[in-house]
Amino acid sequence: MTESESVMHQAWRLIHGKTKPRGSLGKLEALAAQIAAVQGSTAPVMERAALIVFIADHGIAKAGVSAWPQAVTREMARNFLAGGAAATAFARKLDIPVTLVDAGMCEPMAHPQLLDRRMGHGAADFSQGPAMTAAQCETALDHGGKLARETPCDAFCLGEMGIGNTSSAAMLAHKLLGLPLPGLIGPGAGLDAGGVAHKRAVLRKAAARTPARLEPARAMAEYGGFEIAMLAGAMLGAAQSRRLILVDGFIATAAALAALQLEPACRASLVFSHESAEPGHRLMLKAISVEPLLRLELRLGEGTGALLAWPLLRAAGAILSGMASFEDAGVSGKLP
Amino acid sequence: MTESESVMHQAWRLIHGKTKPRGSLGKLEALAAQIAAVQGSTAPVMERAALIVFIADHGIAKAGVSAWPQAVTREMARNFLAGGAAATAFARKLDIPVTLVDAGMCEPMAHPQLLDRRMGHGAADFSQGPAMTAAQCETALDHGGKLARETPCDAFCLGEMGIGNTSSAAMLAHKLLGLPLPGLIGPGAGLDAGGVAHKRAVLRKAAARTPARLEPARAMAEYGGFEIAMLAGAMLGAAQSRRLILVDGFIATAAALAALQLEPACRASLVFSHESAEPGHRLMLKAISVEPLLRLELRLGEGTGALLAWPLLRAAGAILSGMASFEDAGVSGKLP
Repeated sequence: MTESESVMHQAWRLIHGKTKPRGSLGKLEALAAQIAAVQGSTAPVMERAALIVFIADHGIAKAGVSAWPQAVTREMARNFLAGGAAATAFARKLDIPVTLVDAGMCEPMAHPQLLDRRMGHGAADFSQGPAMTAAQCETALDHGGKLARETPCDAFCLGEMGIGNTSSAAMLAHKLLGLPLPGLIGPGAGLDAGGVAHKRAVLRKAAARTPARLEPARAMAEYGGFEIAMLAGAMLGAAQSRRLILVDGFIATAAALAALQLEPACRASLVFSHESAEPGHRLMLKAISVEPLLRLELRLGEGTGALLAWPLLRAAGAILSGMASFEDAGVSGKLP
Repeated sequence: MTESESVMHQAWRLIHGKTKPRGSLGKLEALAAQIAAVQGSTAPVMERAALIVFIADHGIAKAGVSAWPQAVTREMARNFLAGGAAATAFARKLDIPVTLVDAGMCEPMAHPQLLDRRMGHGAADFSQGPAMTAAQCETALDHGGKLARETPCDAFCLGEMGIGNTSSAAMLAHKLLGLPLPGLIGPGAGLDAGGVAHKRAVLRKAAARTPARLEPARAMAEYGGFEIAMLAGAMLGAAQSRRLILVDGFIATAAALAALQLEPACRASLVFSHESAEPGHRLMLKAISVEPLLRLELRLGEGTGALLAWPLLRAAGAILSGMASFEDAGVSGKLP
């Protein structure tokens, strides 16, 4: 038995001894055992979350795959910095510190609260060629990993912003899992039926550029997203440093698919926070046999779903750290 | 248009103008509009929750309908007071103050933190006759209403503890909604198949004592639960004083059924926090056309599900109170 298997076994014994009917806290009990295994402790600490939002532009946006102008990436970066975006409003209510990272917007933006990890002036248009070089992808993974390892917290909420990035996410799921492309392509931030049909045509052509299946680093370099590669790196760094990762929606799950193929052991640290209303998300989660915590019909990204799942993770930690056992509390057991 | 319809209409206009794709915060957007309507304000405040746990005993427990000895009600009351129960552990993490109410345990318990609203030494065994008098039921409703009106908060989490109370809840759903009794009777806190069969036999006989359908006050008096009547009163008091109510699981929903029949307008203030793993809960929610927020396979009660939904309610409030509009933030709209 590995150390983490042994801790998980002990954690389940303690969870079953807490003052509640066995199993009555449902999915939170499995979360509590997962937290214990990741931290290697049956008295886990789950007090501090951290939100990191990676922001980047996508050359594919010029192919008309989004309902929004590419300038919105930059405008939303300003909105994050001013605290007016959904993720920053939620983080404020939850007392979660926010780190904003420019992973490669079209143009730089000087702001003391914006971390510069720019990999270029947006990823290249992947309908024409690779979104980034292999070296850029490696650097983006490293930046994400380093940032996660150096951020103090018990769990990460990882989010993203980048007009066009549902196209990257769909391509990644297609090339990494072999799922049929059409089902992975949806309205994103609000395309109508005609827009979705155009997006499907663009991505079908882009998919034909490369073999049917790709290794994770190659898939990210081909179909990009600087923010997606950095997200994947952050997940690996968080797992290496034994922290939990609340995976957000469609884009963040695409990054998780890459992280899982790069390092399958990171699975132990991942908590899939919610199922997005973007139709491809359900297919991704199903392909990796994941039952998400929340189904709130969210389809915003930014880390909003991860933030909303944080209180569940915190409560799960409290089963082990805050509840009394039958023995300690002097509560009778079930009737024979 | 009523005042609350008008506020809800304005709230939706503001929600659609916030910096996010329309509808992309899913169920949270409808919650935000509901909060605005209840508070009569498009700048609602959703900062403070309060947990009230009503505790009482049930004569029916003597008929062998629970997997646990009746003494557990009292033992768990002590555990709540010491902070070792799941609900108190979760409330601590969420910074939610807890009020514990003795609604009628078998024996009194002197403790400075336990509010005395005792209606008797446990409800009477409803397999033999009414669980309480009509006057007791009315007083319990009044106590709950007064307590809610006098408790300062923006939203209530209302919980309960009482060995045997899934039997009361099943009877209430049967007599209030006309749902077939067998489907409403489940394992509760952990009966095996033989135990459930015995519980069904006891409750079938108890149901035959009275007409097929009962008015809400009569149903509560017949099949009781002092804590259930007090819960129903607290829901009515909270709605009257324009606060939101996070309805917990099987028992709290039974109280909500009574409250809804006593005062249908309270529906506007109710938020159904989760769907319990107790099989009858799904039937209750379906009968009143409710889609709950969470499905976490909880079946503990105490208000735990309501507590876990509180951060969602708080985040929903922040859509209106914390997010910027496209106009304010200077973010471009969708492409034409």
